[in-house]
Amino acid sequence: MSFENAIHARAIVLDTLSLEMCAESGSGHPTSAMSIGHLVAVLMYRTMRWLPDNPECKTADRLVLSEGHAVPAVYAAMADIGATVHWNGEPVKLNPDHLKTLREADSPLDGHPNPKEGISFFDAATGSLGQGLSVAAGLGLAATADKTGRKTYCIIGDGEAREGQITEALDFIMDHNLTNVLPIFNCNSYGQAGAVSKQQSPERLTAKLEAFGFDAETIDGHDPNAIKAAFDQFNIQGRTKPMAVVAKTIKGWGAPSMQGGSWHGKPASKQQVQDVIAELRQTGIQLTSSLATASIAIPSPPESTQQTTPSSNEIMSFKEAMEKWDMSTLLQSGKMATRRAYGVALRALGHGNKNVWAVDADVSNSTFSNVFGNDAELEDRFVECKIAEQNMYSVGVGLSAAGKIPFCSTFSKFITRGYDQIEMAINSGANIKIVGSHSGISLAADGPSQMSLPDIAWFRSFGTMTDHHGNPGCYVLQPADAWAAYGLTLAMAEHTGCSYLRTFRPDVEMIYDESTTFELGGMEVLTEGRDVLIVSAGYMIHECNKAIDELDRLGIDASLLDLYSLPFDEDRLLDLANENNGNVFVVEDNYGGSLGSAVSDACAASGDAFTVEQLHVRRIPKSCRNPESILKMCGLHYTDIANGAALLLGVHANS
Amino acid sequence: MSFENAIHARAIVLDTLSLEMCAESGSGHPTSAMSIGHLVAVLMYRTMRWLPDNPECKTADRLVLSEGHAVPAVYAAMADIGATVHWNGEPVKLNPDHLKTLREADSPLDGHPNPKEGISFFDAATGSLGQGLSVAAGLGLAATADKTGRKTYCIIGDGEAREGQITEALDFIMDHNLTNVLPIFNCNSYGQAGAVSKQQSPERLTAKLEAFGFDAETIDGHDPNAIKAAFDQFNIQGRTKPMAVVAKTIKGWGAPSMQGGSWHGKPASKQQVQDVIAELRQTGIQLTSSLATASIAIPSPPESTQQTTPSSNEIMSFKEAMEKWDMSTLLQSGKMATRRAYGVALRALGHGNKNVWAVDADVSNSTFSNVFGNDAELEDRFVECKIAEQNMYSVGVGLSAAGKIPFCSTFSKFITRGYDQIEMAINSGANIKIVGSHSGISLAADGPSQMSLPDIAWFRSFGTMTDHHGNPGCYVLQPADAWAAYGLTLAMAEHTGCSYLRTFRPDVEMIYDESTTFELGGMEVLTEGRDVLIVSAGYMIHECNKAIDELDRLGIDASLLDLYSLPFDEDRLLDLANENNGNVFVVEDNYGGSLGSAVSDACAASGDAFTVEQLHVRRIPKSCRNPESILKMCGLHYTDIANGAALLLGVHANS
Repeated sequence: MSFENAIHARAIVLDTLSLEMCAESGSGHPTSAMSIGHLVAVLMYRTMRWLPDNPECKTADRLVLSEGHAVPAVYAAMADIGATVHWNGEPVKLNPDHLKTLREADSPLDGHPNPKEGISFFDAATGSLGQGLSVAAGLGLAATADKTGRKTYCIIGDGEAREGQITEALDFIMDHNLTNVLPIFNCNSYGQAGAVSKQQSPERLTAKLEAFGFDAETIDGHDPNAIKAAFDQFNIQGRTKPMAVVAKTIKGWGAPSMQGGSWHGKPASKQQVQDVIAELRQTGIQLTSSLATASIAIPSPPESTQQTTPSSNEIMSFKEAMEKWDMSTLLQSGKMATRRAYGVALRALGHGNKNVWAVDADVSNSTFSNVFGNDAELEDRFVECKIAEQNMYSVGVGLSAAGKIPFCSTFSKFITRGYDQIEMAINSGANIKIVGSHSGISLAADGPSQMSLPDIAWFRSFGTMTDHHGNPGCYVLQPADAWAAYGLTLAMAEHTGCSYLRTFRPDVEMIYDESTTFELGGMEVLTEGRDVLIVSAGYMIHECNKAIDELDRLGIDASLLDLYSLPFDEDRLLDLANENNGNVFVVEDNYGGSLGSAVSDACAASGDAFTVEQLHVRRIPKSCRNPESILKMCGLHYTDIANGAALLLGVHANS
Repeated sequence: MSFENAIHARAIVLDTLSLEMCAESGSGHPTSAMSIGHLVAVLMYRTMRWLPDNPECKTADRLVLSEGHAVPAVYAAMADIGATVHWNGEPVKLNPDHLKTLREADSPLDGHPNPKEGISFFDAATGSLGQGLSVAAGLGLAATADKTGRKTYCIIGDGEAREGQITEALDFIMDHNLTNVLPIFNCNSYGQAGAVSKQQSPERLTAKLEAFGFDAETIDGHDPNAIKAAFDQFNIQGRTKPMAVVAKTIKGWGAPSMQGGSWHGKPASKQQVQDVIAELRQTGIQLTSSLATASIAIPSPPESTQQTTPSSNEIMSFKEAMEKWDMSTLLQSGKMATRRAYGVALRALGHGNKNVWAVDADVSNSTFSNVFGNDAELEDRFVECKIAEQNMYSVGVGLSAAGKIPFCSTFSKFITRGYDQIEMAINSGANIKIVGSHSGISLAADGPSQMSLPDIAWFRSFGTMTDHHGNPGCYVLQPADAWAAYGLTLAMAEHTGCSYLRTFRPDVEMIYDESTTFELGGMEVLTEGRDVLIVSAGYMIHECNKAIDELDRLGIDASLLDLYSLPFDEDRLLDLANENNGNVFVVEDNYGGSLGSAVSDACAASGDAFTVEQLHVRRIPKSCRNPESILKMCGLHYTDIANGAALLLGVHANS
């Protein structure tokens, strides 16, 4: 049987299985799956070098299905090939019968690719559109660094190609000349609500790709030979320029009764499905004269399955690092920005652990990730993403899937740009570290467009659930000084999962030294009093310290707790609150729903009587020339803190 | 004096003022401002038709400065022209002396464009990069609809052009053939941390623009005649195709000592500034032989300042709307999805208020905004953005600035894609309505990539502060049934500011009727008990209703509160909690830090003893075939609710 006929036959098998599993599930996107049947068949049976018994093999080629809703096609191929999945933690060779469990609660066959539910063939959870090509780019970057020769294929929907992140990824692939990543645009002409825009037509996409600098091949996405030729073209030795494929396809290929604009995300009913399968079979017979015994070789394995695991050394202490890199004077000055200490920690991590990478979005001289990037020994692991944050986080997911530990930094405000990507990273189980500088309002002069204000509320929400590793979905870490920033950066690297480090712009006094250990989930009592527990973190610790002195003058014996981690040990907090007569005053330089709510949650759940008052930003800030001025504007000056804490005790500070 | 010399002279005045104001402020981006001095001069003194006395005039041409950090150039032009700003609410003609207050706490001259601080020349707060062109597109769309003939100019940085949202906006401009919007790319070659990528070089940008379908003109951005010619070209009568300008510029133009890659975001010191001004003066003399009395005509006014304000009618009631549109049977069935009721409300609003627009991102048949779009009388006000959420929200900001009331809808999960844009919308004071369907976990089958889980935590954070209108920065609204969805949609339209309506996928029973009025900040007691107050919202109300019956069987007299709005009347909640012995049990189908934290915040602040327990999603969900199955998986089934509430009272449900 010819290659062409064999692929047609496989595509029809995959399409049939896709139809059947969606009909069984009562939901899903069979017509999208059918549009990529041939592409998936050529990839998974012929072009990709991978191991069905070990689909997560780090040297095997990868498929990122960016249009995640088309996943039945891949499940079908895995079942047809008998690839291994993990079912309730046990390895199982997938077979066609298993496909009937699509989207069931105890099935790893999720509605969209979901590696942590058991399909390790995939590296990343997809389904929120537009992210896959960036993940593929991260995988490609790691493969280049690791010299594994693995290739990454990424299938992107035409409607999905409208997401700006796709162009961010294309620029990134060009910047880094990732000739080992192949974007494949699946142009089936229909989105959910209607036809795909002319801006995403095959012709326009091809023109755009060429303008971006790619070799773009337009093919019939149901012609096995054309697909094979394009993939072979991508795999030629010595490719010097990135390539992309634009595949013209038919949504609901092979089954005329399911084609057209009204079939997005609709399975055939159990009644219809036999008729549609008959149509598919008819299509197959027209194409191949016979479908009976279509066979094809099993996929080729990767050239090598050997992977070198770099060894890790012990990481230097803050003092050692500052001495080593001629910053002893700065250390002795006793004043340093947390973001600068982050840069030093990142550099120390880079030297101690070859898996640590630094990723930034054109602000490395503000976040201080450039301390890593400017080190000649580390610069190969520094990734400049330019001003494209969405792409940055998904590249981080790809790096993480390849075993790297990416620290992705920008201003905290601009992290917002990638919140959807970060949530998908958490869903993917990615070991990704998010670092935001210039947090809160203390940056002052640039104004609210550069200030992160609801960021803690968002990140802490993930801390209220448990991720696939059994840890909080995210830790929010707010170091108050350089020692804390250094310690927490190291702690982030030790932890497997997502965490968010929030540094701020101004230089601040060091309040800690080598005697304090910082850990995820930790807190530190800075002042022990008995009248009121002031709880704060980050920059505001310094303002609270001044407020403590004011309160002392009023005869109030206040405690100060540096609650630098969310989530935290709630019992310990409650003990401290009880030691302060149940009076708690939380101070933060961002909007509410954040640190203060975390404290309120703990106190309100206890059933005891506490009074938790919150001082936070309650207006949209604007530019001010310095931190003091904006703290006054937002009612967060140390005098406001002292007045508020005193009032909580019924004491009028000015009386 | 020739036009050319006059523009050179003006550019040098603007550059000088930019330098001086940043030196005075001690921060800012003078070199970026100097790179657009000529572009701004030609725009503001010659090409744009606007009224310095009335810069917000709705028929005047608009300038959206997407690269907001270059704003000193515009402030300088406004001061040179004597345009009106609002200083502490009072109109003031800006003069060069005022510029010294740049970035001061009581100055409207914010670090980045900030219309709500007093510069109504701008329509939107910018500074978080990549958003301006979408705002300009929204303005252009409204101008087309209003037939005002106004043009919108948008200056975009070359580094900024990397943001994917820019390509989303370019596609949108092409889709809607917005020939009244001119993107101007300012190619000054330097970003913050280094040189701009070759992917954003003038040559590459021009090629990309052409591939997107634009007429692209590449010019010397410091050549007055070339700039004028390009703008005239844009303004030719009968333009049939969108146009874009790629301007090659010099960062720190005219002052060699401030050029190159190390000057981003750095002002000259007060000592340096005179030397740099001397360089600029020298440049001016070389170009024009004389700079002494360069003068230029004041800007031209718009052709007309007349604007028609469409009248509003009373909006139909839900019952009237359902009857009018032949849905009486559905109403009588007593079961309907909240998202479907939203669609009906939107349609009724569209008929009653000509300013209401519907905006969607290729899922209008899921969000039901297509009920609006499919109405022949309304379809002109339905905007299909395709799969590009970032662009959608910023288009909404532009529509709002033009006096429209945009309802922007997609799946709640995909709203995350536009969180940064929504925060900037709130900073802009935009009257924007955010609507998310398929919220929480009740959509079940599609899995976590389609589920909104930390969304309430994020949106509610804005509800903890007061916006420029004096209202909560955002209301979070969770209707439990069709009546509530209808009522809350109407309430959103009445309110000026941002609000977030969260609908869900399944059909649910109607629990309200015409006797209930829904309002922002409201709540509704559904069951009055005395043992425990169950607080919930949205889909979970129905599960809680079943739990109430279970509890009744256990002899527990539970109350059920539909807390459909955040923020809410906290005193009323505390009264209800007290009427239930201080026992509060909050139930929600999303991650924590959300409704439960809002309740904890109120209870913990009161100083009284309450027990607030929270039942929320504590794992990353996965696909399940139906809501019941996923509720069980996430511990949110009505039996879990009943057990949890009983345990709070020390009652073991199964004992």
